[in-house]
Formats: sequence, structure tokens, C-alpha cells
Amino acid sequence: NPCICSCLHLQRLAVIYLTHSLCLTFTNTVLGVLISNSSIKHTHKHTIDHFGFLENGTFKQRYLVADDYWEQPGGPILFYTGNEGDIAWFCNNTGFMWEIAEELGAMLVFAEHRYYGESLPFGEDSYSDSKHLNYLTSEQALADFAVLIHSLKSSVRGAQNSPVIALGGSYGGMLSAWLRMKYPNIVVGALASSAPIWQFPGMVPCGDYYKIVTKDFANSGHNCDINIRRSWTAINNVSSTVPGLQWLSEEFSLCSPLKNQNDVLVFKNWLQETWVSLAMVDYPYEANFLQPLPPWPIQEVCKYLTFESSVSDYHLLHGVSQAANVYYNHTGGTSCLNTSQTATGSLGFLGWFYQACTEMVMPMCTDGVHDMFEPEEWNFQAFSEECYGMFGVRPRADWAETVYGGKEVKAHSNIVFSNGGLDPWSSGGVNHNITETLVSIVIPEGAHHLDLRYSNKLDPPSVRAARALEVKYFHEWIRQANTGRKTVAEHFDPKAGKKLITLK
Amino acid sequence: NPCICSCLHLQRLAVIYLTHSLCLTFTNTVLGVLISNSSIKHTHKHTIDHFGFLENGTFKQRYLVADDYWEQPGGPILFYTGNEGDIAWFCNNTGFMWEIAEELGAMLVFAEHRYYGESLPFGEDSYSDSKHLNYLTSEQALADFAVLIHSLKSSVRGAQNSPVIALGGSYGGMLSAWLRMKYPNIVVGALASSAPIWQFPGMVPCGDYYKIVTKDFANSGHNCDINIRRSWTAINNVSSTVPGLQWLSEEFSLCSPLKNQNDVLVFKNWLQETWVSLAMVDYPYEANFLQPLPPWPIQEVCKYLTFESSVSDYHLLHGVSQAANVYYNHTGGTSCLNTSQTATGSLGFLGWFYQACTEMVMPMCTDGVHDMFEPEEWNFQAFSEECYGMFGVRPRADWAETVYGGKEVKAHSNIVFSNGGLDPWSSGGVNHNITETLVSIVIPEGAHHLDLRYSNKLDPPSVRAARALEVKYFHEWIRQANTGRKTVAEHFDPKAGKKLITLK
Repeated sequence: NPCICSCLHLQRLAVIYLTHSLCLTFTNTVLGVLISNSSIKHTHKHTIDHFGFLENGTFKQRYLVADDYWEQPGGPILFYTGNEGDIAWFCNNTGFMWEIAEELGAMLVFAEHRYYGESLPFGEDSYSDSKHLNYLTSEQALADFAVLIHSLKSSVRGAQNSPVIALGGSYGGMLSAWLRMKYPNIVVGALASSAPIWQFPGMVPCGDYYKIVTKDFANSGHNCDINIRRSWTAINNVSSTVPGLQWLSEEFSLCSPLKNQNDVLVFKNWLQETWVSLAMVDYPYEANFLQPLPPWPIQEVCKYLTFESSVSDYHLLHGVSQAANVYYNHTGGTSCLNTSQTATGSLGFLGWFYQACTEMVMPMCTDGVHDMFEPEEWNFQAFSEECYGMFGVRPRADWAETVYGGKEVKAHSNIVFSNGGLDPWSSGGVNHNITETLVSIVIPEGAHHLDLRYSNKLDPPSVRAARALEVKYFHEWIRQANTGRKTVAEHFDPKAGKKLITLK
Repeated sequence: NPCICSCLHLQRLAVIYLTHSLCLTFTNTVLGVLISNSSIKHTHKHTIDHFGFLENGTFKQRYLVADDYWEQPGGPILFYTGNEGDIAWFCNNTGFMWEIAEELGAMLVFAEHRYYGESLPFGEDSYSDSKHLNYLTSEQALADFAVLIHSLKSSVRGAQNSPVIALGGSYGGMLSAWLRMKYPNIVVGALASSAPIWQFPGMVPCGDYYKIVTKDFANSGHNCDINIRRSWTAINNVSSTVPGLQWLSEEFSLCSPLKNQNDVLVFKNWLQETWVSLAMVDYPYEANFLQPLPPWPIQEVCKYLTFESSVSDYHLLHGVSQAANVYYNHTGGTSCLNTSQTATGSLGFLGWFYQACTEMVMPMCTDGVHDMFEPEEWNFQAFSEECYGMFGVRPRADWAETVYGGKEVKAHSNIVFSNGGLDPWSSGGVNHNITETLVSIVIPEGAHHLDLRYSNKLDPPSVRAARALEVKYFHEWIRQANTGRKTVAEHFDPKAGKKLITLK
């Protein structure tokens, strides 16, 4: 899975990049069978460049359709705005849509984001150079979605008057919100789950993200965050000698022993990414995706990190090793831990990284005081240089704010922003109501887009209530759209007469 | 003036293309002195491609600023969204903005549209081939405006909290409306004067445009439209012989005598364009731009076309010749009429034509029954072939509707659409109120964006009332913005507490 790969492989990069990726991490693959039914898989032929006419090539965008419960004509369409990965995974892991389809009489559509999964504009060459990558932008992806919906409503019998609601999580949630903002003619509303639309320069403090990670650990066990904060110095101390490097490698059962300070840097980044990933998937029930995780995995991790700060570096790091094993070796079947996991498909990773290096500039920083990580300032210039070295392009720090509105979004309507209190990405999310129709739902016990997942008997009441409220908004948007359509029809009926302000 | 040139040179093309150009025609150059003050001319360095990162070149966009009446800090900015021509012309011919600046305490900004005037992304090469033309789109132009405003508000002292209102006429009016639709974070409202945002495929009947031209002539003199309708057959009859061709050439004092049927086609297109131009500039006062025109010029034209239909072809065409001379030789100083006027600067023309051949697909047709022109169907395929032959690109017929919403714009707000009842472009305009904040103002006695012109003692009451109402809306939008800013400030003040929907 490219998305998971992207999470794991970020560790290869400097820590400054580590968390620029919105890694969608899934833990239940319950409905794998659903998408194996080839009848629901479709493609749409898109122009590669919606915003220019020189490049007149086309590509096939993959989308998945499930219409078992669709009440045609006119039943609503729930449209998942695919993010940085294979759409099949999002389809399988957005149980919320599957569970509400019947109540809403809705058709489900899951549209893949260009440059991910099977929707490659230039096939195998899509990632070959910056020329081929030039059409990987959120604006092009939104245009794909808009054109696809426009086409579906024209071509699918009974869909002409179907109100379309956009849904998405993480970067996909940002796309849902932006689709409603930029194309309100196309979608009547949007659910943007765990969508950090404000994680751009100047909108939120760059340290908030890691503060939330730290808080999750602080709240999950006595001394947990304090001992993780101490661990970096402990690693530096222990790794300063060759026997120490060897001890660390053995203690953590590393597949490749640490040989030098660069390896230590990779090791620390890998540990940091581990804690961040745990914060994103700190779900209340047992999950089993990359590897099995227990319910509330951070609490399990923290059980090994309760000691007082007077313990030795070795004692501390023994605890950290046990804690890491909760994430990587919960069932005990892992023979060694790999700090640089092998890639099985890195397209998702590369694609998101290109996006972070162009539009998706999300400042992150740590200070080691308000968070449990080593201090690292946000350095846009260094980031820009890295991007130029890697892709030959430079990020535009201000563009996202200009094009997507930043904090100034109150003119828009019909968007629900849901955020989990445990999710570090909530730092850049909308956590207060902006207007009556731009509303925030906070799920205090939720990690990364918990509300989009299948319901579970261990779900906290807050996520159950959030889902119920979301459905209530969907009903309201659908009602508005159906009412509005009638009103428009009257407006455009010449016999009904036109309402004019005629000045004499 | 490139815009005027574009109007005149369209005649070289088949009639089907004739009126795809939104020709801004000006008749009073009152304030030429204002822009001669070099202190108000500025440029802004833009990225050539806002929607891709491979092309990292930049270009200088010209914009003009007048801040004599600006009340800083925080006074509003009236921002003219430049259309297909030299911004100096729009600056000089949008007297409305100059006349309301003091009342509003407003700064005036006139921003030139890329690829027109002096704002050429690749200098002299900008029009050299389709590769260089690739960044000439309305989306790029809107992004230029958004980035420029964003930059002005950051860099001009006292402008940080200035509400910005977009204004424009014709294609510039479409851009104003679209700027508000796509970037409501950037502009608080828009006045879209004579903006045919619905002149796209499937939105209005293709014949409406010429019906309005015809109505203008029908209402301006007895038998006027009927005789023009008859003139095409009369021309065909007379031009079928060599002596007839010679007679026509002499009767119309053509600079180049008609030699063959192709010349006759050009001649008829030129006449048709003359009637269309008259409909656009049928202003109530004497105007003097390309050549002097009397007040209500169509009435003058029609004085020569009042005879009954029993007259001979030669009699009829003599009247048509006298009518054409109202437009081309009002003062009697023109020695001959040129059906193919020489170009003095065709960039404006070429640019708009490229835009018509890509995004701005505006179907037009005539049937000779409901209008006074020779029947000509709308033929998209033929149009597409012509575009491919000329620029190597093909128009995308559905794109404008998808990206700008077509009839489905009710989710937007704070746009005034004003249209003149005499203006053929009102066929594709918004002529009824869509919502309380998307309003239509109809000026029955108005031609093409009369409301944007300098006030004149001969202005009909309808345009005076329209301007007053427009200013009322500006005040309201400014008030909203200033109120809204305070509300937002409270929202984001951490001490004021956040309003959350927290679900337990």
C-alpha cells in the first residue's frame, strides 16, 4: 500500500520532512470483498491539463461505484475525494459511507486522485521527471473530481438531479472542503474529516502538531512523555561509543545494526515517526493493518515508560525498546525491526512528497520543551533547497492561502470539519464553528478521522454522536438542494416571469 | 487600441466567429491625463504558471493605482479586473470608479490582464506559438488578480484591512464575478457589468444575441430591421454581376472595390459587424472614439432605412450605404470605407481569439426570421477545426460551465450583475435576482456597460439609479467586511474562548 509506505519511508528523510505527509493509516480491511467485484470499477477519461490547452493528452482516472442502495432517480451521491494513495484502500476503509448508504438511499463513488493508484497520467513515466509530474496539483485533482461528477450526472440515468456530497479524510478531507469551496455548483456540501486546511504558513503555530502527539503520550501513562523526551539524549549518550551502538542495535533487535552517527539519526527519526504514527492511529479498538495493534495502543506503549527520570540511559532505552515493540511486534512474530522498511510501491510516497514540495507547504517544528522531541526549527529555505534538489521545483509558501482562502473562508457554506482530539493533524484543522453552515465537530477521544471508519462496539459516544450529526447535515444539504432546484426551475420558467430590479 | 482592433478585424473571419469577441468599445477618453502621471503605474512580478511548478519563469503585470481619495488605514480598494486590452483604456473609460472614489474613500486599482497591453508573459514571443500562449487562460488571470491583491494588502501601508471590491465590464465583468466566486477570501464583492457569464453552451439560446441587435434596430425606426434583413438578398442579387459589384463598391465608397464572391462575404460580414457594434455603443450622448457618433446612433442609422419593402435592391442598398456612413463617416471626413481596416496592434484581437478557441466558447447563431441577419447555425465542430488550424488547440465546450458554475451559482454571494437592455451581450447576462446577494440590475436604456462610463447629463434615469444602487451595495459589502473582521478577530482570540461543538 503506497500510503502506508509513505509513512514508513519518510524516516529516510531529515526530521524536518517527517510529518509533512498526511499519512492515511488504516487498520481494518473489512470490506476487501466489496471492491473485488469488478462491476463497480470504472474509469473516466480526463484531459491531463485542465488549466492549459497545449497538453491535450488524456488519462484514465479510476473510480469505484456502489449503487446497491441508490434510490433513483435523484437519490444523493456520496463522493469520496481520493487522496494520496490507491482508491481501493480508501474505499475499504471508509466504512462510514458504506454504513449510511442505505439510510440516505445514496450511491457511493470513490474517485482516485491523479498520480496515485492506477490513475497515472503518463503511465509508468508519470514519476520519471518534473515534466511529467507537472500536472500533479490539488487544483488539477479538484478539476478531475468536478469533471467526473459533471459527467456522471449527465450520463448516469437518474443522476441528473442527484445532490452530490463530498467526503474525505486527511488530505482527502482538505480536497472535499476545497471542492465545495471552489465548485459549489458541483457538490452541495462536504464532510472534511481530520482535514488540516490551516496547516499552512502563518495560520497555526508550527509546534502545535507535535504538542498534540506529546499530549497523547502524557495523558496515556505516568511519565510517558517525559521519558520519551529524555530518550533522545539517552540515545545520543549511548550511541557515542561503538559498544553503545552495538548495545542499541541488539536492544532494539534492529535488522541492520547501527554503524555510525548517520544511522543514529535515521534511528531517531524512525522512533519519532513511530510515536507520531501511534498518535494518528490511537483507536479505541484492536486494529490490524500493517501489524496488529491493541486497543488504545499508546496506553500499551506507555506501560513500558512509567519509570522515574532517575533511571539510567540503558534502563530508559530498554523501556523505549519494549514500547516500540508494541507498535512493531505486538504479536511477537517479528524477528527484527527495520528502521528503513523496504518499499513495495513508493508512488504514493513520491507523489505526496512532490505535493509537499510545491503547494502543500506545512510548517512543522519542535522545541523539546512543549513537546517531547528534539528541537528542530521550521526552515523554509532549507526545505526549498531539498525540494529543488529532489524534483527541480520550489515550493510556493503563500499559494495555498491565496487559492484556498486560509482563515478567510466564511463566505463558503455547507462544510463540516470534524477533528479528533487525539489526532495531531487537528492542530491545523477547523476546531470552531465559523458560520452556521461551516461547522466544526470535535471528537475528543478520536484519532485520525475515526468518524470515517466502520462503527465498532468500542467506539466512544463522541464518535457515534459525530457520525449522527454528520448524517443530519447530509440530510439538510440534500433537502436544500432539492428545494433549491425547484426554486431555480421556477426562476427559469419564462412563464413564471422573471424577477427583475428594473430601474426607470 | 487592441480592443477596438479586435472588433474591426473579426470581420476577416467567417461570420460564425464574428461576435465571439467581447469587444470593449469606448467613446469618451475624458481622463487620458490621469494615467499620464507615471507615479500611478506599477508592475507586479508574477509566476507565469500558477497551476504548475515546472515553468518557473515570471513576468511583470502592469497595474495602475490612484489613491488620492483613499482613506487609510482600512479604506476600501476598488479593483478593476482588466480584460482583453490595454489597461490604460479601461482605466480611462471606467469613469464610474473615478467618480465614486471620493464618496467611498477608496483606492482605485486597474490591473492589466496577462497577454494584453504591456503585461506580456514572454515579451514579444508571447503570441509566437501555442507553447507561449499556453498560460493565457481566465484561471491564470484570476490567480494574477488574487495574488496581486494579496500582495498589495501585505505591502501597502494601511491596506491590510481594506475590503476589496472587484469591478469589471464585459469579459472584465465576467472576471469580476468569477474572482468573487473563486476567491471570496480576496474580494468582498463584485460588480459585473454587461458580463455574459451565461453565454456558454447550453445556457441560453444561441440566437438571443442577434435578436437583441435586431430589436434595437426595430425599435429605432420604422422598417429599420426589415430593410437590413432584406439587404443581404439585395447584396447577393446586385453582386451577382460584374457591373453590380462595381456599383456596390462605388455606392459604399469602398477603398478596395469588390472583385469576387469572397469579397462580398467579407463585405457582408463587415456590415453585420457594423450593426452589432452600433448595438453595443448605442449610447444616449454624442461619443467620439473610433470616429464621432451622434447620440442614439441607431436612430440616426435608421433614418436612412425607413422606406417600404417595395423599393428596388439599388434603392435599398443606397439607404444601407447612407446608414453605414453614420457609423464610419458621421463628420464627413472619411474618403473611403475600408472593409478590412488595417491593424495597428492585433495582440488584443489574437489574445481574445485564443481565449475563444479554448475556454470562452460562446455559441452564436442567426436564423434570418427572429433576427435581421442571414441564417447561420452554430457549428461547434467547424469552430473547433478553425481553432485547431489557427492555434493548434481545440476548445473545450463544457469546461466553462464546470469551472464557473453555469446557472448553478446560488451558493455564491455579493455580486451585482448589471445589464443594459439595448446591449446584445445582455443575452448571456444575469437578468434576474438569483438570491438576496446575487442581484441583477437591468438598465432598459443602456447599451454595453453604460453604468461603468462617466456620468453624462444625457444619461437616462435608469443608469443613474443603477449606479446609485451599485454604490449602495458597495457600502453594504464594506460594512459586512468590517463587521466580519471584528467577529473573526474575536473568534481567533484565544482569550475569548473557542466556540466548539464538543460531543461527549
